[in-house]
Amino acid sequence: MFKGNCIVAQSGGPTAVINASACGIITEAFRRKTIEGVYAAKNGIIGVLDENLFDLRREAPETFRLLKTTPGPGLGSCRYRLKPAEKDETEYRRIFEVFEAHDIRYFFYIGGNDSMDTALKIHNYARKTGYPLAALGIPKTIDNDLPGTDHSPGYGSAAKYVAASVMEIKRDAESYNTNIVTIVEVMGRNTGWLAAAGALAAPDLIYMPETPFSFERFNEDVGKACRKKGKVLIVVSEGIKDGRGQFIFKTQAHRHDIFGHHQLGGVGFLLEDFVKEHIEPRVKTVQLGILQRCAVHFASGTDLAEAFLAGREAVRYAVDGNSGFMVSLEREKGRRYRCRTILTDLSEVANKVKPLPRDWINPAGNHVTRECLEYIRPLTEREVRLPMAGGLPRFARLKEIYLEKRCKHS
Amino acid sequence: MFKGNCIVAQSGGPTAVINASACGIITEAFRRKTIEGVYAAKNGIIGVLDENLFDLRREAPETFRLLKTTPGPGLGSCRYRLKPAEKDETEYRRIFEVFEAHDIRYFFYIGGNDSMDTALKIHNYARKTGYPLAALGIPKTIDNDLPGTDHSPGYGSAAKYVAASVMEIKRDAESYNTNIVTIVEVMGRNTGWLAAAGALAAPDLIYMPETPFSFERFNEDVGKACRKKGKVLIVVSEGIKDGRGQFIFKTQAHRHDIFGHHQLGGVGFLLEDFVKEHIEPRVKTVQLGILQRCAVHFASGTDLAEAFLAGREAVRYAVDGNSGFMVSLEREKGRRYRCRTILTDLSEVANKVKPLPRDWINPAGNHVTRECLEYIRPLTEREVRLPMAGGLPRFARLKEIYLEKRCKHS
Repeated sequence: MFKGNCIVAQSGGPTAVINASACGIITEAFRRKTIEGVYAAKNGIIGVLDENLFDLRREAPETFRLLKTTPGPGLGSCRYRLKPAEKDETEYRRIFEVFEAHDIRYFFYIGGNDSMDTALKIHNYARKTGYPLAALGIPKTIDNDLPGTDHSPGYGSAAKYVAASVMEIKRDAESYNTNIVTIVEVMGRNTGWLAAAGALAAPDLIYMPETPFSFERFNEDVGKACRKKGKVLIVVSEGIKDGRGQFIFKTQAHRHDIFGHHQLGGVGFLLEDFVKEHIEPRVKTVQLGILQRCAVHFASGTDLAEAFLAGREAVRYAVDGNSGFMVSLEREKGRRYRCRTILTDLSEVANKVKPLPRDWINPAGNHVTRECLEYIRPLTEREVRLPMAGGLPRFARLKEIYLEKRCKHS
Repeated sequence: MFKGNCIVAQSGGPTAVINASACGIITEAFRRKTIEGVYAAKNGIIGVLDENLFDLRREAPETFRLLKTTPGPGLGSCRYRLKPAEKDETEYRRIFEVFEAHDIRYFFYIGGNDSMDTALKIHNYARKTGYPLAALGIPKTIDNDLPGTDHSPGYGSAAKYVAASVMEIKRDAESYNTNIVTIVEVMGRNTGWLAAAGALAAPDLIYMPETPFSFERFNEDVGKACRKKGKVLIVVSEGIKDGRGQFIFKTQAHRHDIFGHHQLGGVGFLLEDFVKEHIEPRVKTVQLGILQRCAVHFASGTDLAEAFLAGREAVRYAVDGNSGFMVSLEREKGRRYRCRTILTDLSEVANKVKPLPRDWINPAGNHVTRECLEYIRPLTEREVRLPMAGGLPRFARLKEIYLEKRCKHS
């Protein structure tokens, strides 16, 4: 148990409940006598490197009530990977200079696979140098692809949004007495967890990255469904791949992001063209887009509560002397859904990806099993009542009162 | 006041509350002694032409409680225009043959501009032939472009969904400490009402079809906002047009629908390419897509109540002997928002389009005025609590018990 200050930071793409985890950490840290200053690093680890720390105790208490259901990372996020300390210690020396200058003894990092890598590296460097620090990771991803946890906070809300949207789109697609193929493209660069959530809306076909996609089989599947039903609803992960592991999306020369990644999110239109040409001229594509990770207006109450819990528990674990762990969720046995937190070694999580189990996908690779649905459904349950004003949600706006800088500009 | 049966039907693209109007009609018709059979024509006027009528009294009462918040047209919809009776009476003779065979004295048609044309033509033909019929139109459009009414049921919910989604996207776009231009493309082929609703989320720029779009000015607007703020949020109507009235969307040979219409919904990506090339390499486009017209999961309580009211009042007006009218909404004077129904002659509505008033758009043509926001805000107010089951909304499924056909196949 260290006496000192703590840093809370967020990293990676946001989820609808990313700030609930931050609020769990912050409100619990406020209560703990061993924790004095409760600081946010603006934009994740970049805020530490730049010594951009703001004082969360100087925010109005009302702020955190609103922040819990505010989308986007309330403390700012980043996509930044630390170099391995074995190769270059510069950044680590800087980080720990800032930690020391502000008497930081607790480091809470909310994020996904990459962010758990950052938390692990910081934990390892502290151990190596003998700096007294508790570094803990709090899981957050709509993709649900973190190993070592039953599921990740953020997934349940995204799954609920995807399922409800697909249900609504399905009804919309039944408007006219004409045949139509509707393709809903959902997020999921490497895993099919979100597409699988679409199964709650009972679409006809689901395609996920876990099984190789073939146009021949797609042609057969859709053709058969069209002949049988006339109106066909397809859910597809943006990241479906062919037999050689290549993404099936439409490569467009100008659609690369600044890191040279291909921008995904085009496979729906590609399949649309294929269906139009080979199967049925009436096709509509809907890309659910980034609302999957920010639509707090239809968040899961269960997910929100668990995100908050993971944050709160992180403080408890840290104060109890744990470091180098991710706060995971463990589903308790029994008919009624219940979850508790456990600790998972960060090295078991960092940079790893948990795919949808193959036996939760049907043999044809175009739908999921009942077991998969039973896994997903409880995560989407319960509704969230947002603070509203004039018909629209109220979101928090932080004052962000920064600490004076004590280190030389790096 | 006619004694006999009534037909309820839906036409055109759905809204989140299209079935609330149907429920208003149905539940009120059930109560009226002068109305005996309450029938739905499946898929709008096509259901009359094909004599596909089902008996709403044979549905379970629970159905209508769920139907009120079920998206998509519960009775089926169509896009079908009757030829002018002056040119060809065939379809009218068929319609009235079906009416007569089933003793139809009331015809309620829920729809937009085109559908009001159908209701008017049927009213006129009944008058001309002396057939005793009350034909009334009930407005429905997310586009809010129907004249003769303060606003249309369906708009408030779409506006609320657009505004909340843009608010969420805005927070998401602020995730990282990098500049980014985010473009949200909303529906609106001919009018900017829905884009204007995005203004409730305070974006930087809004482009609507009512003012001619120029790339030079866009370049200037966005460049200036980027230099000033770094993060820029733009809302754009799918239907923005250049100075000659031509749509600015990306024309792609294969993106024509079966009627030869250009499929809109591509202008966001076009602007994205432009921004990437000329202003800022980090650009993201979000198309809100058809969820704008079916996202009952975030419908406006005010809109839902008014949609129901318009349906209920239609029955009252019809039983009182009115025909050839649309049931319009009139906003009462005073600080507190209140609305009542009035009748508008269908000839003032059919095939006409009400644009956003020019003086509700700022002189630069890239935002809306406070007066515009004051008009929109009350329409988005109040929340709807959906019937839920297992984390997801419950929708109605009708039994659709059809009447025996009495007419020869046309």
